[in-house]
Amino acid sequence: MPATYTIGLDYGTNSVRALIVNSANGREIATAVWGYETGSEGVILSRDPNLARQNPADYVKGAAITIRQALAAARKNVRGFRPEQVIGIGVDATGSTPLPVDAQGQPLAFQRKFARHPAAQAWLWKDHTSVAEAAEITQMARRLRPQYLAKCGGTYSSEWFFSKILHCRRTAPAVFAAAHTWVECADYIPAMLTGTEHPDQLTVGVCAAGHKAMYHDDWGGYPDARFLGKLDPELAALRARLRPRAHPIDRAVGGLTADWARRTGLTAGIPVAVGAIDAHLGAVGSGIGPGTMTQIIGTSACTMMVVPAGRALADVPGLCGIVKGSILPGYHGLEAGQAAVGDIYNWFVNYLQPGGPAGTHAALTAAAAKLQPGESGLLALDWNNGNRTILADQQLTGLLLGQTLYTTPAEIYRALIEATAFGALTIIRRFEEYGIPVKQIINCGGIAEKNPLVMQIYADVTGRPMKVSRSAQTCALGAAIAGAVVAGAHRNYAAAQKAMTGLKPRVFKPNPKAHAVYQQLYALYRQLHDAFGVAEWTGNLSQVMKQLIALRSAARRVA
Amino acid sequence: MPATYTIGLDYGTNSVRALIVNSANGREIATAVWGYETGSEGVILSRDPNLARQNPADYVKGAAITIRQALAAARKNVRGFRPEQVIGIGVDATGSTPLPVDAQGQPLAFQRKFARHPAAQAWLWKDHTSVAEAAEITQMARRLRPQYLAKCGGTYSSEWFFSKILHCRRTAPAVFAAAHTWVECADYIPAMLTGTEHPDQLTVGVCAAGHKAMYHDDWGGYPDARFLGKLDPELAALRARLRPRAHPIDRAVGGLTADWARRTGLTAGIPVAVGAIDAHLGAVGSGIGPGTMTQIIGTSACTMMVVPAGRALADVPGLCGIVKGSILPGYHGLEAGQAAVGDIYNWFVNYLQPGGPAGTHAALTAAAAKLQPGESGLLALDWNNGNRTILADQQLTGLLLGQTLYTTPAEIYRALIEATAFGALTIIRRFEEYGIPVKQIINCGGIAEKNPLVMQIYADVTGRPMKVSRSAQTCALGAAIAGAVVAGAHRNYAAAQKAMTGLKPRVFKPNPKAHAVYQQLYALYRQLHDAFGVAEWTGNLSQVMKQLIALRSAARRVA
Repeated sequence: MPATYTIGLDYGTNSVRALIVNSANGREIATAVWGYETGSEGVILSRDPNLARQNPADYVKGAAITIRQALAAARKNVRGFRPEQVIGIGVDATGSTPLPVDAQGQPLAFQRKFARHPAAQAWLWKDHTSVAEAAEITQMARRLRPQYLAKCGGTYSSEWFFSKILHCRRTAPAVFAAAHTWVECADYIPAMLTGTEHPDQLTVGVCAAGHKAMYHDDWGGYPDARFLGKLDPELAALRARLRPRAHPIDRAVGGLTADWARRTGLTAGIPVAVGAIDAHLGAVGSGIGPGTMTQIIGTSACTMMVVPAGRALADVPGLCGIVKGSILPGYHGLEAGQAAVGDIYNWFVNYLQPGGPAGTHAALTAAAAKLQPGESGLLALDWNNGNRTILADQQLTGLLLGQTLYTTPAEIYRALIEATAFGALTIIRRFEEYGIPVKQIINCGGIAEKNPLVMQIYADVTGRPMKVSRSAQTCALGAAIAGAVVAGAHRNYAAAQKAMTGLKPRVFKPNPKAHAVYQQLYALYRQLHDAFGVAEWTGNLSQVMKQLIALRSAARRVA
Repeated sequence: MPATYTIGLDYGTNSVRALIVNSANGREIATAVWGYETGSEGVILSRDPNLARQNPADYVKGAAITIRQALAAARKNVRGFRPEQVIGIGVDATGSTPLPVDAQGQPLAFQRKFARHPAAQAWLWKDHTSVAEAAEITQMARRLRPQYLAKCGGTYSSEWFFSKILHCRRTAPAVFAAAHTWVECADYIPAMLTGTEHPDQLTVGVCAAGHKAMYHDDWGGYPDARFLGKLDPELAALRARLRPRAHPIDRAVGGLTADWARRTGLTAGIPVAVGAIDAHLGAVGSGIGPGTMTQIIGTSACTMMVVPAGRALADVPGLCGIVKGSILPGYHGLEAGQAAVGDIYNWFVNYLQPGGPAGTHAALTAAAAKLQPGESGLLALDWNNGNRTILADQQLTGLLLGQTLYTTPAEIYRALIEATAFGALTIIRRFEEYGIPVKQIINCGGIAEKNPLVMQIYADVTGRPMKVSRSAQTCALGAAIAGAVVAGAHRNYAAAQKAMTGLKPRVFKPNPKAHAVYQQLYALYRQLHDAFGVAEWTGNLSQVMKQLIALRSAARRVA
């Protein structure tokens, strides 16, 4: 029997990737990447540093190009490969990245009069123009609908669906008025490929709706019209044009259209799965399941867990989101995260440019690897970009203490890595405090792939083995798995993941001695974390520096 | 009438300087510097990084060479100058720098068998081998003689007289046994020049005795024998061989010997003043007087005030020392300080080496000067070398907070300067809290001389004008003033200072807008200072980062 394949289409911040995966064993046989044409590295910018948009035309062009190129590569890589062997497609995209569409479901940006209007484009996940609207929504929900906030970490973000739409209403009313409704990028792509863009036909994924648009079955889907109407009557009106239900990724949106079959070389009619946000399908591609926590560690970190949907689950304070079906069908999807990880290391190297020629990531990593835990006497907070979990507070900043007159760049670099590991441990503890045991941790993303020191420090800090996903493209792989499930290659996600995901052979095991020191350092980290981050905290920090000095002396005696 | 001159002999850490000053107007007509020959840049080091000693033979040689060279330079610089016009000598030296001497008052290091023994040399002020003994003395005094500690900031230092002697007793008993007594460098030099080294003839200055050896008239001079005996019976025995009284700098130790007249070219019999510690005579040379605070700002900072001796004066918690007559006769001398100022800036530039080629002091200063107060959102504590005043705690370390993913080296550099200014303000406030108004501030030292941005930030932070001493050699000038007073060129110190000291024309005036911002930043600094430094503090820091962000936003709106 010939092999079957599925395609994962992964819409990132700067580019789109198509990945062709063997649906029996997860082998990644071909990939192609295309950088968006519009804006700076695919992002439309303006004089307002908060603005970040994308041109929906790039989405269309990118699908055609990358699928065609990936198929061509597959032909080269696998003898006898034929496009007909591709039996399904899955899609992941950044989010919340909503775009305004007309009554036919076509992006307003496709109309000549809106083609260059920034508000008519896709509002990229990292667009922060809507800070004021986010605060307004948070205030209103805190007063009237606290249950909405309980599922999304207590604060509605400027990065999310309704903040952006409300900001458009306030600042670009012509665009708002012309928009029949708004669609997440992760929903638009599958609709586009299957010709189901019409607002009455559109299939909405529960991942973006639940995590970014306060959608929840408990209260009948999206926030109620009365609540939205208090923000703006037009939002209440818009709600009636949003879809009544959102779906997990085990259903197909439809079959590939003849037009898209022609444009790509694929077979018309093959199923396209419901779309989801990139990190959530990355968790699927990493092998998430009950008891398995996945961390995508790159510039920031996305941390995911799932809990059987049948199990009673308390709201976990500080988590970015708890949404039924958002990661795996039949499970609550729990999303946590760190607002900066690699970005903090990059800040140190690129902005501070320390240590002259010895200031590269490679040189600093090598020097930091020679240090013992506690040896530097330093302690840092990983808040240079605020704190996502568990404090959910963007108004926090970085902190470094313990400096002497002899502190070196490598010592600081290691302290920054340790701080991000402490941040990860804080998330693990939060899961476990709320009855969600973390039995296994699987990492993926650029930092997990490339920096063994970071992985070892994570293991030593948490006292748990750090496993690394076999795939370097877990988001696209997760999308391909979704394609395989809707194509019927596997009976469910558990079976598909078992067949198609895997781990790298190297597992980073915790060193018990290092872990013992890090337990003491973590207690101090937590003291700082609570003192600077928790409004209710009272206490005293006069022993923090002294304890760091004591740990430093102990480490130097050993070294 | 021909002009008269006096010589200030200034014994520093790496070199000795002779300065010839016109006693009528303070004009500095000639100077000569000689680097000590022994050790590394004049300091004897060992594998123990805490050890720092000096060879007393260098003191002898240095006096002869620098005085001869300065006289030769004076002949060149001033037409008709004759060495007979030099009518007196004053001496300042680092301290506490005690050296063991024999029954004739000659340094043990002059004996062949001790010539290379580190314990037989002068124990330089920054020798930190005696940490354990300092802790023991502090413990004992806290229990038995709290009054001793009240005059020296609550903690007896490893840098001081009895810590060093006790460490010698414990670790080099042969040296201790051979020593008849111990003499501060600042006392040894005047004795050497006047032939009064014999322990029964020696004149001890109250400056070093009071600030470093717990000497105080209130309890009959040095610590009582019973107390010292509890530390070690041999210390009690030593006490009987210490001088019963210590003296301020308005008396002559004696007249220059014929031998020293021959070696230098000076006139035999000219008076040599009682010696004092360099920073204290630096305060005299800067123009200290009631209401005038002087700051010597270099790698660290020494801050001095005087209060009329007749005035009742409470112990001021946290001050390094309160000693009658230690700066000016007839006044309490009050010493405060910052354990690192320029050293913190140097750490940033030399150890972190930030910013590539833009990482020099000059480039960072230029970039930092363009920033508004509050604009960086950063706040630092100036504790990289511990805190001398008002916390008197070496077990404290540096802190920086407010970092984002875009924080620049220049922003941090400015934050470090601001932190040292906040440290200075904390000292000013402590003086004023205890009824000692600071009406004028005069600065001297390398940083005050060379970095106008630092001076401007000090003015803006404190809300007070920063004046800078006219002399670049205030310690040597202060010593020359002492020589002038004991030679009778002026009737007292007030008259001598009026005639011989002065200010640079440029006064750094506080900018009211900047000061208003710094008042808010100082409140936050003080919160951190107390939270990390004061054991009794309780509270919450959750608004610190948010207030810094608010100040940052306000500053950026203005900028």
